[in-house]
Amino acid sequence: MISHPDFSVEPWAVRETSLNLDVLAQSESVFALSNGHVGLRGNLDEGEPHGLPGTYLNSVYEVRPLPYAEPGYGNPESRQTVINVTNGKLIRLLVDDEPFDVRYGNCVRHERVLDLRAGTLTRSLEWSSPSARTVRVDAMRLVSFTHRAVAAIQYKVEAVDRPMRIVIQSELVANEALPPQSADPRAAAVLESPLACEENQVQGSRALLVHSTRTTGLRVAAGMDHDVSGPGTLRLESEGAADVARVTVAAELEPGESLLMVKLLAYGWSSRRSRPALHDQVMAALSAARLSGWDGLVADQRRFLDEFWSCADVEVTGDIEVQQAVRFGLFHLLQAGARAEGRPIPAKGLTGPGYDGHAFWDTETFVLPVLTYTRPEVAGDALRWRQSILPQATERAAKLGLAGAAFPWRTIGGAGSSAYWPAGAAAFHINSDIADAALRYVNATQDSGFESAVGIRLLVATARLWYSLGHFGADGTFRIDGVTGPDEYSAIADNNIYTNLGAKRNLLAAAEMTTRYPQEAMSLAVDQTERSEWIRAADAMAVPFDSRLGIHAQAERFTDHEVWDFQSTDPDQYPLMLHFPYFELYRKQVVKQADLVLAMQLHPDSFTPEQKAANFAYYEGITVRDSSLSASTQAVIAAEVGHLDLAYDYLGEAALMDLDDLEHNTRDGLHLAALAGSWTALVFGFGGMRATDDGLRFCPRLPQGLQEIAFRLRYRGRRLQVRIQPDSATYQLLGGEPLEISHDGAKVVVDTDPVSMTLPAAVAPVGPAPQQPKGRAPLRRLEERSGG
Amino acid sequence: MISHPDFSVEPWAVRETSLNLDVLAQSESVFALSNGHVGLRGNLDEGEPHGLPGTYLNSVYEVRPLPYAEPGYGNPESRQTVINVTNGKLIRLLVDDEPFDVRYGNCVRHERVLDLRAGTLTRSLEWSSPSARTVRVDAMRLVSFTHRAVAAIQYKVEAVDRPMRIVIQSELVANEALPPQSADPRAAAVLESPLACEENQVQGSRALLVHSTRTTGLRVAAGMDHDVSGPGTLRLESEGAADVARVTVAAELEPGESLLMVKLLAYGWSSRRSRPALHDQVMAALSAARLSGWDGLVADQRRFLDEFWSCADVEVTGDIEVQQAVRFGLFHLLQAGARAEGRPIPAKGLTGPGYDGHAFWDTETFVLPVLTYTRPEVAGDALRWRQSILPQATERAAKLGLAGAAFPWRTIGGAGSSAYWPAGAAAFHINSDIADAALRYVNATQDSGFESAVGIRLLVATARLWYSLGHFGADGTFRIDGVTGPDEYSAIADNNIYTNLGAKRNLLAAAEMTTRYPQEAMSLAVDQTERSEWIRAADAMAVPFDSRLGIHAQAERFTDHEVWDFQSTDPDQYPLMLHFPYFELYRKQVVKQADLVLAMQLHPDSFTPEQKAANFAYYEGITVRDSSLSASTQAVIAAEVGHLDLAYDYLGEAALMDLDDLEHNTRDGLHLAALAGSWTALVFGFGGMRATDDGLRFCPRLPQGLQEIAFRLRYRGRRLQVRIQPDSATYQLLGGEPLEISHDGAKVVVDTDPVSMTLPAAVAPVGPAPQQPKGRAPLRRLEERSGG
Repeated sequence: MISHPDFSVEPWAVRETSLNLDVLAQSESVFALSNGHVGLRGNLDEGEPHGLPGTYLNSVYEVRPLPYAEPGYGNPESRQTVINVTNGKLIRLLVDDEPFDVRYGNCVRHERVLDLRAGTLTRSLEWSSPSARTVRVDAMRLVSFTHRAVAAIQYKVEAVDRPMRIVIQSELVANEALPPQSADPRAAAVLESPLACEENQVQGSRALLVHSTRTTGLRVAAGMDHDVSGPGTLRLESEGAADVARVTVAAELEPGESLLMVKLLAYGWSSRRSRPALHDQVMAALSAARLSGWDGLVADQRRFLDEFWSCADVEVTGDIEVQQAVRFGLFHLLQAGARAEGRPIPAKGLTGPGYDGHAFWDTETFVLPVLTYTRPEVAGDALRWRQSILPQATERAAKLGLAGAAFPWRTIGGAGSSAYWPAGAAAFHINSDIADAALRYVNATQDSGFESAVGIRLLVATARLWYSLGHFGADGTFRIDGVTGPDEYSAIADNNIYTNLGAKRNLLAAAEMTTRYPQEAMSLAVDQTERSEWIRAADAMAVPFDSRLGIHAQAERFTDHEVWDFQSTDPDQYPLMLHFPYFELYRKQVVKQADLVLAMQLHPDSFTPEQKAANFAYYEGITVRDSSLSASTQAVIAAEVGHLDLAYDYLGEAALMDLDDLEHNTRDGLHLAALAGSWTALVFGFGGMRATDDGLRFCPRLPQGLQEIAFRLRYRGRRLQVRIQPDSATYQLLGGEPLEISHDGAKVVVDTDPVSMTLPAAVAPVGPAPQQPKGRAPLRRLEERSGG
Repeated sequence: MISHPDFSVEPWAVRETSLNLDVLAQSESVFALSNGHVGLRGNLDEGEPHGLPGTYLNSVYEVRPLPYAEPGYGNPESRQTVINVTNGKLIRLLVDDEPFDVRYGNCVRHERVLDLRAGTLTRSLEWSSPSARTVRVDAMRLVSFTHRAVAAIQYKVEAVDRPMRIVIQSELVANEALPPQSADPRAAAVLESPLACEENQVQGSRALLVHSTRTTGLRVAAGMDHDVSGPGTLRLESEGAADVARVTVAAELEPGESLLMVKLLAYGWSSRRSRPALHDQVMAALSAARLSGWDGLVADQRRFLDEFWSCADVEVTGDIEVQQAVRFGLFHLLQAGARAEGRPIPAKGLTGPGYDGHAFWDTETFVLPVLTYTRPEVAGDALRWRQSILPQATERAAKLGLAGAAFPWRTIGGAGSSAYWPAGAAAFHINSDIADAALRYVNATQDSGFESAVGIRLLVATARLWYSLGHFGADGTFRIDGVTGPDEYSAIADNNIYTNLGAKRNLLAAAEMTTRYPQEAMSLAVDQTERSEWIRAADAMAVPFDSRLGIHAQAERFTDHEVWDFQSTDPDQYPLMLHFPYFELYRKQVVKQADLVLAMQLHPDSFTPEQKAANFAYYEGITVRDSSLSASTQAVIAAEVGHLDLAYDYLGEAALMDLDDLEHNTRDGLHLAALAGSWTALVFGFGGMRATDDGLRFCPRLPQGLQEIAFRLRYRGRRLQVRIQPDSATYQLLGGEPLEISHDGAKVVVDTDPVSMTLPAAVAPVGPAPQQPKGRAPLRRLEERSGG
């Protein structure tokens, strides 16, 4: 990973076998631990050197002013920004008189392992100080999935070669110095020291800091407690100030002796609860963690993950990198959402400050599909967060002169934070993406409680938005003008097909759902007239088709524009947005990321197979994949239209986005949507899985490069396994009632008798290979692997 | 004017008969004096109270950082901003122990008069101090048209009722405290104290300050000298510091006695010349001014203006407000350009800091047409400024990946300063606007020296831009996609007709001009192939027509968009851009300002009379005139298609834009384009004047409200007068050779024998009155006048 020769590829772990300071920040993202509530970047225990220190609590943010050189009505004046909260990871070590710092002395050995089954990050090293004292350090940390507020670190120091004094300082630090994050001095001022101290308490091995954010007034409490063991007399001291609390342990070790510290951390935050209430909450979490103890926390973590993998694992035979990547991706998706519980799943989870910690459509369209079939309760929770911000989305729609709800393009707490509206506020498709995610969740879980309490509210609010946003044109079609689709190299276009098909489904589903839930429909004031209008609009939805080219136009008139001059574009001019003005990108045929192609994935029955093939071929020729969101979608449709090796290439790209830092910004946090991409390419792509009202469809087939794929799903109370081999697909019901599915177009029932059912793999259609823009073809994964 | 009962309407003056502090800033703009090089706002002599202190030197600017919350490639990082330079207007007065300040004591009488023939601002007042000393002050100031560097003030104080001590302090002040201009602290820091002192020199009655701007390094020198006379012994003192130089005169006056000071001011600036050189330049200008003396300066000023009015005056009989307004407008246009001499004519002239002192397309499309026919050498100078920034425009085109030159949407010194590209960089029409202005100037002057040295360069550079910006579509048309036309409530549209017709003329004219000047063409590397391509593109230029509606679509697909809901829009929601997001405006049919209608004015032969009538009717229904640029254009086409009373209403609106502060921002400076509007509405509208390759066309007809219009023109070495009465038009050649013109479609020759030629007025076509959006019809000027 990360162009670093010392990383090894293993099926259940990410292992770093030596420390490369040049890519420290990337490794901090890769090794981040989180449960969706608390997130710790993989910073070194001793705090320095660091790429980017990071400790996050989901939805703890500050607001910073957004500057505009030319103001525009409705532009948000400030932006919610995730902040680095009190750092409880810090454990400093003094070896005789020398502070342990990998930049000095000699680091003989340094290994870190993220264990995807244990849910732990371990670190093992041997270091000789400048004065030649050698110690071994073995540290392990976890952010507990079972204790939502708790993280823990076991830290062991062993004297190797001679007697020595060892001092461990375990700290809570607020307002850590960070690398500069903004050129705007006003924003920098907000982010530099975001926390004001309200309480610091130190008692023996236990300490607590309570702070609050200056503008948003969120109260954050962090507590720590310690168990220390070692030979002889240990000296324990503790002290506290406004922004730091410190527990110090000193010991004299003989060679072979160790000092062991278990550090328990607990976090809590609230916008409403009092300082004493938060104080008590954190202290109680510490007490509960002590009750479990280190071993209990580790065992609980393992149990939680065993349960997850039993429903979610994907086995890939024949490509160990993809095997590792798909599990790494699933693990981080789980980490981002598991205990978010009514809070957002940001685009980077809690792994870094990238995108200001905002959640985008990525969550609903890329991340939730994976969680819906692997950990559906997490997907439901994420949608409950959308419901919780409905009041702000409703207010925003009203401010825009629209009905229903207009969800913000990017946000943490519900307020719009986009400063460039053509690629922000205009991207209304986020609203049908949310509706679509709710429909997908309901389809997969048949959770009628969710449907009647959450789903219907989301569907009605967004349907109302679409109806007010569009209008019936003179030709009778329902038009949605002036919006931006997924492809951010086009903007403010009329009748973007992705948007229109999403709106169409949204309108029809809202009409259908309000018929099934008349009580809820009445309380939302939906009547038959409104429903009929939704259906009328949906039925008349404009879907531009260019009959000259025989393909769908991504948006009206798109195919009249000049095709980008790919021949004259240098490889180092990608991503194009860093080398060409939006003006130039918008007016030409060049696609940043799958747009119409994503519409074909999400609306499989809105296109004929011939249209899919022709559309895919055309858009392949103008899609440059300057977004990490694109490769997995291209993999899915490439597989559907029969280009299996190309799909495999795109799978490789999606899989390695963060492990290979393909976009050079993994330092700011992981790309959750790309991490979802290998699962998506494998399951929706080679598995050919689509969910329809009738249930699941599969169309399994393998590319040359893979010998076998097996994936597990949760669907309507069942646990299902699908195993794909070159010529066959085997379905196995691991739990629940028999299930009718569609295999390669034929309906079959998967039951426990026989134990499994093996059917011939689907045969891929054959067609000429599509051409990508010059220099933008994905790496040929087969060659890559044989070459590597 | 300015909702103020104490202003009187006079044909040759703007008179304020009492001081209203609530509208002080507006009056400072209205009473601003300038010669296009030096500009002084109409601040009170004593400096306070003020709305906005302002002293400007054309092209003396600072750059300030432009903030972006979300960066985009090519966005300018900084903006040129006009700065308030050393204030030499300041004359403070102490009456016994009381400083003269209109906010204290009792201002018995206060009158200011801008004399449009004399080119002076006079002020006459009587004031009793809080301790009941009464003085009369008579002040007069001018910015000399004949001494480019010089302004002068005559200041006289008379003791009225009892003996008193009088002290006059005449000052030069740099870095005056200004009201806050920017919320961005970085910008505010730049603008708060923009000048660093390099020299201050005081000697007797003479003083000099030399400063330089901190970032742009422009050196500014301001000097003053004084002549003082009065009874008895006058005590004169002078002193200087870094940012202030002061000459103080003290006298004892008996009742009826006066103290008289003549203050001569001189300014100079340079980006290259040394401090001593500037010092000497300013001192020399003072010496020259002393040589002329106050009376000489006043007489020169009058002579200069007599000459101007003899070629430019417009007489309006039947509407004294319009009479005043058209002269007020011509006067300020002259002030903005007369001595600019290779520097820009900014959108607000040198009357205030609005729009950061930038020049836009307003200059070429609204201001220069007036100057071309009244003071053509000024129009030529303004275009020479465009040529001077051709290197930057060429560089900018290259940066955008385009050929030729791309002039910036807004600038002072040539660098692009637009922070919102959809209404800035995308408005490429500025390039054909410049080309058009050059063609108009050449047509009017037959200045072949200009044509071969300036015109051809501008034409070729812009033609190359258009050819590279557009492309031939699949249907064979030449398309210009993704640009913004004049209507800023649409943006990033395909084939905006205004833009495309401008590009077409530009391409054809460049081809034609390079044929006539083969030498110059060769030096610009224009060959026959390139010329043929220009012609091919021009001939194939796309001009969208909506056959369903039988009208031209302002841009492709524009008429497919939803029509704005004018019925539900409240009157206080205008201007719409302050109450609705761009998103909403862009995707609907609502027009901020004449766009297609302006195309019909500038390209009269590209539309049939029927199309003009139908187009005008349609666009009237969706045009809200949220820009001061719109009314005059609507007046011109309303007159052409026969709605003479409506044209008269729009004339009224254009005429009173600043005198009535219709857009509530006259405080920041006058709207030069709107000031050009009454001339435009009268001459191009009721005169029906159009310039074609064959010469001038007229189609004169009067609205009910006017009894007579007479205007004077300069054209191809002639001085021509056109007098329009209800039933006739009289052409008179005031100077030069006989001239063939077209009157109401018929060719006639205007000669000195007979002295004049009277022809029947043109008969207006008759059609149903167009409807404006609810609440957006212009004030009915006839009713307004009878009611008022």
